This record gives sequence, C-alpha cells and structure tokens, in this order.
Amino acid sequence: MKITVLGNGSASPTLDRNPSSVVLEYRNKLYLLDCGEATQYRFLEHNISFTKLSYILISHLHGDHFLGLFGLLSTLNTWGREKELTLVGPLGLKEILITQFKYQQTILNYTIRFIETQSVEKQQVIETKDVTIFTFPLQHRIETTGFLFVEKMQDYKLKKDKLPMNIKLEHIHQLKSGNDVYENDKIFYKNSDYAKEPDAPKQFAYCTDTIFDPSILAYFNKVDLLYHEATFLDEHAARAASTFHSTAKQAATIALQSDSKQLLIGHFSARYTEINSFKTEAETVFSNTVLATNGLVIEI
Amino acid sequence: MKITVLGNGSASPTLDRNPSSVVLEYRNKLYLLDCGEATQYRFLEHNISFTKLSYILISHLHGDHFLGLFGLLSTLNTWGREKELTLVGPLGLKEILITQFKYQQTILNYTIRFIETQSVEKQQVIETKDVTIFTFPLQHRIETTGFLFVEKMQDYKLKKDKLPMNIKLEHIHQLKSGNDVYENDKIFYKNSDYAKEPDAPKQFAYCTDTIFDPSILAYFNKVDLLYHEATFLDEHAARAASTFHSTAKQAATIALQSDSKQLLIGHFSARYTEINSFKTEAETVFSNTVLATNGLVIEI
Repeated sequence: MKITVLGNGSASPTLDRNPSSVVLEYRNKLYLLDCGEATQYRFLEHNISFTKLSYILISHLHGDHFLGLFGLLSTLNTWGREKELTLVGPLGLKEILITQFKYQQTILNYTIRFIETQSVEKQQVIETKDVTIFTFPLQHRIETTGFLFVEKMQDYKLKKDKLPMNIKLEHIHQLKSGNDVYENDKIFYKNSDYAKEPDAPKQFAYCTDTIFDPSILAYFNKVDLLYHEATFLDEHAARAASTFHSTAKQAATIALQSDSKQLLIGHFSARYTEINSFKTEAETVFSNTVLATNGLVIEI
Repeated sequence: MKITVLGNGSASPTLDRNPSSVVLEYRNKLYLLDCGEATQYRFLEHNISFTKLSYILISHLHGDHFLGLFGLLSTLNTWGREKELTLVGPLGLKEILITQFKYQQTILNYTIRFIETQSVEKQQVIETKDVTIFTFPLQHRIETTGFLFVEKMQDYKLKKDKLPMNIKLEHIHQLKSGNDVYENDKIFYKNSDYAKEPDAPKQFAYCTDTIFDPSILAYFNKVDLLYHEATFLDEHAARAASTFHSTAKQAATIALQSDSKQLLIGHFSARYTEINSFKTEAETVFSNTVLATNGLVIEI
C-alpha cells in the first residue's frame, strides 16, 4: 500500500498548505480519502493517474474535506471516463452533487455508485478481492466517519523448491489456502512442509476530523499506519476541545494506545506558521511520528 | 478601476493556469467576476483584501467559473465577516449554496444579498454611487451572462482659481452638476467659465463563456477594456463553434466592432501549452490586445 499526502491544512486557507486529501494506491487501484478544494491539481502536481482512481471516500461535509470533489468528477467526465466510480460519504453528499450537476446540465459518461455512511457504529462499506474498508464514527461538529483499510488475507506462499513435479492443481489450491492435503483420510502433504504463512494483512486507519476520543480504540488496533488529525498543539488543548479537534499529543496518545506501528499527523491549523513543533510534541508520547507534507509518500 | 486577473484557464485543469476569475477594484471596493476553484488562494497569492470584497458576480454555472465560491464564502465567515455581501448569478446558484450550507450546518455571520440574473435581455443589476452594473445575454451551452461596469458620471470639475470668494454653496452644487447658475432669470455664472466637464465614465465589459456572437455588440460600445474569452485558435474554429466558445480572432473582431479601447483575452484551452499565438492571432484584427496571465493588473 502506497499512501500519498495531498494536503495538510485545515479550514482556513494558507498558501503553503492544501486542504485535506490522502490517496492510497494498492494493486493498481487508487482510493482517495477526502478531496479538499483543488485536489485535482494535486493529481497533476504529483503525476497521479486519474484513470486508476476507483474509490473516493469523504469523511464529512466541511468544505476543506470535499470541495474539490465536483471539479474532480467533472474533469474525469471531460477526459472521457466510462468506468464506474464508487463514492462513499455522508448523507447530503449525493444531494449536493445532484444539485450541481442539474444546473451544470451535465450528464456523466460514467456511473457513480454511491454508498452512504452513518456515524453510529463501525460498518463494512467496501469489500473487494484486494481490501475490506470499514467506516467508524468520529466525534466532530457534524456527522463524521473514520476509515479503516484492511488488506485481504493473501494466499499461503508455496515453497516451490519443495513441491513435487507431479502435484495436482487441486492440491496446490489447498496448500495456498493454508490447508493440509489429505488422501484416504491420511495427510498426504503437510502444509508447513510445502507452504509459508503469508504476511499479516496491512492495515491503514484514517481519523479526521475528531476530538480526542479514546472510544475509537474499539475500531482499530495494531494498524501499520494511523493518520490522525492534529489541528492544534497542546498549548491550545482547550481550543481543540471546543472546536472538536485534537492536539498533536492527543493524536500520539491514540497511536500509542491502539498499538499502531506508525503515526502520520496533519490538518494543521493556519495559526501555526511552522509545523515541526507538532512532531516534537507527538514524539514525547509516540516516537514513530511523521508529519504530513504535500506529496509525502509512505509505503506500508 | 484596477483589474487583476486571477485565472486564464478553461475547464480542463492545468498546473500553470487557474480557472476563470477577475477582480475589479474601484473606490476601495472589490467586485469579483467569476470564482473558479481555489480562487481564495489567489487572493492570498496576490495579497488581495478579503475585507474589501463587496460584490461577487457569476457568469454561469460551469464548474470552472464558480466552484471556488463556497470555499471563499466559508472563509469570509471563518474570518469574522459581518458586512453584507452581494452575490449576482444565475438560477440555481442560490439552491446550490443553500444545499451545501445546510449539510455543513453553517450559519453565516453575514448576509448574502442574492440577485438572480436572466439571460434574455440586458438588465441593470447593481447601482451604487460609484458604478452601474449591467448583465447581458451570452450564447453558451447553459444560461450565461456577460457583465458591463459603467463608472458613475463624475461631478463637473470646478476651476477653483476662477471661483469668487463669496460664491454660495447652492451655486457650487449647480456648477458641479454641469448647470449654469441663474439669478432673476439671467445667467449669473456661466458653467463653462467656472467648471470643466468631467472625463467620460470608464467602462469595462466581461464576456465569457460565449460563442462568437456579434449580437452582443448591442450591449456595449467604446468600453475602455473588453475581456472576451478566447478558448481556441482560429485553426480550431469549428471546435470553438461546436462547444460554444470563441477563437482569439473572433474575440478581436468583437473588440474591433465594439470600438473597444483595449482587449484582454483569456480562458485558454488546456490543449495549447503556449499562449503567445493567441496574442499574435488577435493582433491581426485588433492591435491593442493583452493576454490574461495570473496576477496581471490593468488600470483603466
């Protein structure tokens, strides 16, 4: 899984930050998480394929998380997309898009499959041969969900040098599925002799925007990468709470308590002109912290 | 009148052009014409005051002309605006904004006075002590209007060295209005002895998006600056006509036939990587042509 940061700002615009957006690439498909204003220009800037884009997931309907959506969808249409696109987002998103397309008098050449989220409980919203995607509730000023990507369990890896030349295809399938192969009720091929357990499925959790809320620990654990908003520094913890945002230290606390392997923080308030203090503060709680910066790529 | 170009691109995004937007400053007020995606970032880039923004006028509801509006209106709110804002635009714009604000659960601290345009005939939409603004129909794929700014006629300029010391205030007002002053039915002060005619009111016309349409010559004449779209070069005139756009040569023809003093062309299609050819082509018809470029300022 390759994760590219397209924006690290919050609602107030600044020239050196773009609003929220992260793109995840896995097995030649792109999953876009949030789509702040002008996200389509970040695709151009970082040479990201519009064609591979298959899923767009919107956390909530504050402008800095979805205002780039209409421009992006229009460009896909102008550029001849015919392949279905799946759009995951809260109540209202569909109505907003339909209203705009109506007055723009645009008929799309491609289908948008719309999946409406709820922010009451964890829910599986997508399942493909590659990944399972869940939403889970976040506490913010309006209905908001986090997202959890879980890679599908891979096949057991065959020890090719150990396999007999004449092994049947049916037995190979059984070994790949992690099973022993029986003939006449007796073990014929013991799985561990011929195959290795695959790596644990990779997991990526995305939590923005949210107040510091340890109840989200119920929704993910031991993820390879946790993106958690850090709009404020600890010195403005009261402001963070009153606006339903988090501090760098609070993001790190969630990373620590969820036993995450790595923490990526972003959504920095425009009031801070430099962002290194966010890293310093988070690292006092959770050392493996990375700052979201425009174009940053993390492979997990 | 100071006119600043904020974008010169058309619908397909490119990294080196921004979508349509022009800001006009006159007597400490800003009038924004069109508001493509990320226009608020252009305000930051060119250090344009958000506070002075008083009027926003949207030509039509294609995304490259209005998608930056919601972000801009939200930022004005976040930054504490309380002063009324006037928004001029076609049917549908109000509904689009209301739908978005509803789901964003935003209550604005300021009032938006909404003026709905029609694209049937020329119409006066704004009149202040400084300017009169008209809309007029343009022929495009959806309802579209052009805009005409006409400076209010200024007072006659008093020849201060000629004025008698004891002249009455009432007589000064009469001279400023361009009238002779009578006492007992006889000329007491002949206007031309004491006052000079003011300069002709400045005029600015804005025409985008539009097919080449000489019928718009009925709506403006002898303007100081004409902004006219030039999406294509003459070699793609057929494509221009079929998409209801104009070529550089056609824009220049409108400038020539309307006896405009200067022509500003923009809205260049992404298919052209260099734009000097637009100027070369337009100048074969109308010599005083300027290319719209990001941040260009024209004073009229």
